Amino acid sequence: MTPDFETLSDFAEILTALPSANPAAKADAEDRNGQLTKPPGALGRLEDLAIWYASWVGSGRPEIKSPQVVIFAGNHGVAAAGVSAFPPEVTEQMVFNFQAGGAAINQLSKAFDAKLDVHALDLDRPTADFSKGPAMSETECVAALKAGWNAVDLKADLFVTGEMGIGNTTPAAAIAAALFGGGADAWVGRGTGVDDAGLARKAAVVEAGLAQNADAMGSPLDVLRCLGGRELAAMAGAITRARVESIPVLLDGFICTAAASVLHATAENALDHTQAAHLSAEGAHSNLLDKLGKSPILSMGLRLGEGSGAALAIGVLKGAIACHSGMATFAEAGVSDA
Amino acid sequence: MTPDFETLSDFAEILTALPSANPAAKADAEDRNGQLTKPPGALGRLEDLAIWYASWVGSGRPEIKSPQVVIFAGNHGVAAAGVSAFPPEVTEQMVFNFQAGGAAINQLSKAFDAKLDVHALDLDRPTADFSKGPAMSETECVAALKAGWNAVDLKADLFVTGEMGIGNTTPAAAIAAALFGGGADAWVGRGTGVDDAGLARKAAVVEAGLAQNADAMGSPLDVLRCLGGRELAAMAGAITRARVESIPVLLDGFICTAAASVLHATAENALDHTQAAHLSAEGAHSNLLDKLGKSPILSMGLRLGEGSGAALAIGVLKGAIACHSGMATFAEAGVSDA
Repeated sequence: MTPDFETLSDFAEILTALPSANPAAKADAEDRNGQLTKPPGALGRLEDLAIWYASWVGSGRPEIKSPQVVIFAGNHGVAAAGVSAFPPEVTEQMVFNFQAGGAAINQLSKAFDAKLDVHALDLDRPTADFSKGPAMSETECVAALKAGWNAVDLKADLFVTGEMGIGNTTPAAAIAAALFGGGADAWVGRGTGVDDAGLARKAAVVEAGLAQNADAMGSPLDVLRCLGGRELAAMAGAITRARVESIPVLLDGFICTAAASVLHATAENALDHTQAAHLSAEGAHSNLLDKLGKSPILSMGLRLGEGSGAALAIGVLKGAIACHSGMATFAEAGVSDA
Repeated sequence: MTPDFETLSDFAEILTALPSANPAAKADAEDRNGQLTKPPGALGRLEDLAIWYASWVGSGRPEIKSPQVVIFAGNHGVAAAGVSAFPPEVTEQMVFNFQAGGAAINQLSKAFDAKLDVHALDLDRPTADFSKGPAMSETECVAALKAGWNAVDLKADLFVTGEMGIGNTTPAAAIAAALFGGGADAWVGRGTGVDDAGLARKAAVVEAGLAQNADAMGSPLDVLRCLGGRELAAMAGAITRARVESIPVLLDGFICTAAASVLHATAENALDHTQAAHLSAEGAHSNLLDKLGKSPILSMGLRLGEGSGAALAIGVLKGAIACHSGMATFAEAGVSDA
């Protein structure tokens, strides 16, 4: 039975009892990989990706037919503190752009045959300014987790989640600082392009948020509630649901990874069904991936969000699976082994 | 009129009079890029790739509809010296595998809707062992350049070339050593997986080749003739033809890049229509790309050849062009600019 949750404590419990990868499918995929017409290891990380994917979807010779991309949008009280180069109304304007098919993520989803869904989360009701107290009540945070949880298409065979929310590199940096320490300066960056003064404001807001929400520091899910935002909580909910359904996930950039970090901090194995799709240009992303033990598939200097980096990596993963499942073996092709 | 050549000197002349990118298309693409609904620069290298591609195909808002992948296969006298982990008959066996659709490049070409052509170049007549003298006569080298030149589909809007040839990391290393110095040890690597003894044999063969063909060192095309092989010359011919036709090219790994280096050494601008698709696991590839001033799009630890890394990058380039040509502008979408 699919688990359910009404509180953050219920949600934490789900994270303590997550399903594992399928060892038989993994063994089948490794066996097949060793017989394909190529020198051992010659497809490099494509081989690792194929075996990882096979182990989660439970087939030694899988296909990718139905990738799903879901964008969650949210607004943030901290945006009023001048932490972004763009005004807050752009969150909703970009939601309209997603719905009209005009954004980068629309083009990338189409290019790699992924279904794209967009969920705007109470945009007229920004979260509270976390530098003055908790961003969300438990009820609000659970509702956002559920929005993510329910957004996953159970027929998807690959899941990507992205976000839109003016100002949301600031809550992402605050979450990273709360979970991993090092102070605000280690985690804030230029986001969509703030100047030096904007960067200083971001650091000050994050420091204030850490101080104001000191009580939350003992629990990663409380960190998400007090320093996060609806789209971050929704991504965490969706990534968890994908795991419960054994759907592999490609993590997008800094904000998506910060949301995922909350899961990792709650249960160390919680991200085993995920790969880091890309290394963002947001400076702290590299450090955040290191904390999670993840190595990015792509490094293209993206810093757009929307799930764009992860959607781009769908193409690479499709290439990996096409090789793994489509190539002939040495025996089938009559090719001499080394 | 398309140029023609009957000698290496004719071919060198073509390289001195190559067409440039289209400056109007480049300006159009840059202008469009600045208006798209994203923060400036937020698509990172995808933006650079889109502008580069636009400038070569001559349209500020291009599409990629007809990529072509061409594999050239050749056999090498030096293979008898034990420089590969695989026996020479595998070259022809793999050609059959390409023709039957069973190799990695077949799957990747299909995944990214590229046409795949395979040209086996006199497999029953390996080039001479270059450690004892020139690998090819001028007639043989010109014939191989022409095989490449004539293999380019003039209706292609993106070109990828790859190779199959047991032992061919050795001629590639010899070419690199001849063009850029540093000695054999700086350029030989494990290829498809030779052991330490095999690696030492490769270095010795390359050193002998450099000494035996000292007369060739003054001319990059003579280096190609004396130290290269048919599939390397064919790739050089094809990359040049693509340039003459203003077709953008994605360079594959170490061997393809070594072939391309001959063009660069002859005319410094000869590779402006190319991008380095990936960084190979073959250790010297990074150094070779540095010599050409190229930064790889992907770094996946591939070391297979066949054009596999470049074919994988077709997906990334398609994503870049989909964003560039498909996204709405700020004005179209009614989104507030920064």
